[in-house]
Amino acid sequence: MAQVRRDPVIGRWVIVEQRDKSLGPADYEKESHLTKKGAFCQFCNGREGQTPPEVDAIRPGAYAPNAPGWLSRVVPNKFPALRIEGALDRRGVGLYDMTNGVGAHEVLIETPDHHKNFADYSIEEVVNVIKLYQNRSMSLARDKRFKYIMIFKNYGQSAGASLEHAHSQIIALPMVPKYVAEELDGAQKYYDFRGRCVFCDMIQQEYQDQRRMITSNDDFLSFCPFVPRFPFESWIFPKEHGIDFVTMQDTQRYQLAQILKDVLLRMKICLSDPSYNFYLHVAPVNYENPQSYHWHIEIVPQLTRVAGFEWGTGFYVVRTAPSVAAECLRGAVT
Amino acid sequence: MAQVRRDPVIGRWVIVEQRDKSLGPADYEKESHLTKKGAFCQFCNGREGQTPPEVDAIRPGAYAPNAPGWLSRVVPNKFPALRIEGALDRRGVGLYDMTNGVGAHEVLIETPDHHKNFADYSIEEVVNVIKLYQNRSMSLARDKRFKYIMIFKNYGQSAGASLEHAHSQIIALPMVPKYVAEELDGAQKYYDFRGRCVFCDMIQQEYQDQRRMITSNDDFLSFCPFVPRFPFESWIFPKEHGIDFVTMQDTQRYQLAQILKDVLLRMKICLSDPSYNFYLHVAPVNYENPQSYHWHIEIVPQLTRVAGFEWGTGFYVVRTAPSVAAECLRGAVT
Repeated sequence: MAQVRRDPVIGRWVIVEQRDKSLGPADYEKESHLTKKGAFCQFCNGREGQTPPEVDAIRPGAYAPNAPGWLSRVVPNKFPALRIEGALDRRGVGLYDMTNGVGAHEVLIETPDHHKNFADYSIEEVVNVIKLYQNRSMSLARDKRFKYIMIFKNYGQSAGASLEHAHSQIIALPMVPKYVAEELDGAQKYYDFRGRCVFCDMIQQEYQDQRRMITSNDDFLSFCPFVPRFPFESWIFPKEHGIDFVTMQDTQRYQLAQILKDVLLRMKICLSDPSYNFYLHVAPVNYENPQSYHWHIEIVPQLTRVAGFEWGTGFYVVRTAPSVAAECLRGAVT
Repeated sequence: MAQVRRDPVIGRWVIVEQRDKSLGPADYEKESHLTKKGAFCQFCNGREGQTPPEVDAIRPGAYAPNAPGWLSRVVPNKFPALRIEGALDRRGVGLYDMTNGVGAHEVLIETPDHHKNFADYSIEEVVNVIKLYQNRSMSLARDKRFKYIMIFKNYGQSAGASLEHAHSQIIALPMVPKYVAEELDGAQKYYDFRGRCVFCDMIQQEYQDQRRMITSNDDFLSFCPFVPRFPFESWIFPKEHGIDFVTMQDTQRYQLAQILKDVLLRMKICLSDPSYNFYLHVAPVNYENPQSYHWHIEIVPQLTRVAGFEWGTGFYVVRTAPSVAAECLRGAVT
């Protein structure tokens, strides 16, 4: 089993493969990061037997599991970063802390159609994907070993997608990841000082300012953040304060599907179908400070390469002002 | 002038280009991140007039500045992330904090030879590069506006190098960057608790354990860290405790040059000339806790793509155990 190791100075957690399963130099050939195109695809309709048995799916009518007829399905990852079996077994080795690599790693196959792009889904198709995000989040949160459920999507080669067929990923983690912990901590400090949610204040400031706004609907709004890491980075927030998205019902789910598809389509138009990642930032399982956190989605197009300055400092250099990015995205006709 | 903006939740600083100099979508065409090859190179011997006037150089004999005959030279970056002129002018806009993008951004042209690779330099050539790192660090640290001097190198396309001719970069920053601040903070907490430098303890543990050791000489040692972000990541530490590298004299400088070249050559052999970044982590200008910090160099080969999980969590998944990486690097005959 892989180990989850904690840096003794800065507290970063890293999942490290065990010795006998480690990749050697030859496994990192120059092309290994490229998206596999045109190869046999196990995610396509009719290939259900090629994946591990599904853990959830959207199927209209009375079709059997692991048979054709699905609209979206979730299966365990064949090459998981973390494994579902076993105990955490926290322990130290001299300076270092570690646990076993226990967690869950699932793949959500968003559509049976190999060539479909998230930005071109119908709103109903996006609704199905969001429903499965909610189902899996609720289900995995019941496992007492898991502290955080992370949902994300890699699209395109520069965003690290290794398979072409549209999919998202769900990872259940035995600890709260660093970036989320920093957000929770910063938001709680702001709340302690001002008695308000920092994200609610940010939403209000962006909505009043308008320069970085991309679009909005009844329940959600999207803007380019004032302090992005990447050019054309875009965030989606629910207007109403809330720490998690699993309780959303039909109306809100439809509104989220509408705005998520809309922002991705604007990016596809403005940036010529760019590679991107998106991920949900929600509160940890059983979070105790619901007044200070505000869940959201961050979409980060991958147009440039991160280099030594960023890896060494955590500073980012963004060569497009967010107001310029928002203007482009606002102008795209969807 | 660019702005330096601070995220109001997690405190990350980002350099954001101003509106009228912002890159638009067309500036990020699919190939814009590729290293320019075979193009006219302004860094080559005899092209000194094509760069801004040099701020320092290693020249044997009595050659004039900005003329041929140099071994290494430092020039201001033609497209700086930060500019040397102006006041910081710290200010807020609603929730957000910002300052003007004041700083220095210099390029160290390591060799007059367009095709030479750092791993193949003579030790004397590396010594010259290190001397210039030291000179520029000391000189920039005298400017009261700068709190941190960051030295780094991008090599190869996947590491974000936009030019082929071997060069390093030096950036002077008006604040201590996040990753360094986290290291300083973690190291100080360890010191407060145990009365020892966490890095000295780490060096001792790695030296005794031997499994992650790559190589060592009289004054330095190199190992693959127990908690890496990247496969085959390698760190170089001085054996003697110290917070900065500018005071190093001839003997130590030679030892550092020897081990840096040696580790890079081992990577070149093991990983077929990989893209990599390296950066120096030293204490900030006028740092007041010299007992707790320990300067070092981190070398991060870029063999894979960072994706949504990492961007969303700060967690990394490393598919090669550091002990396996170290074994490969130890085995390379240099």
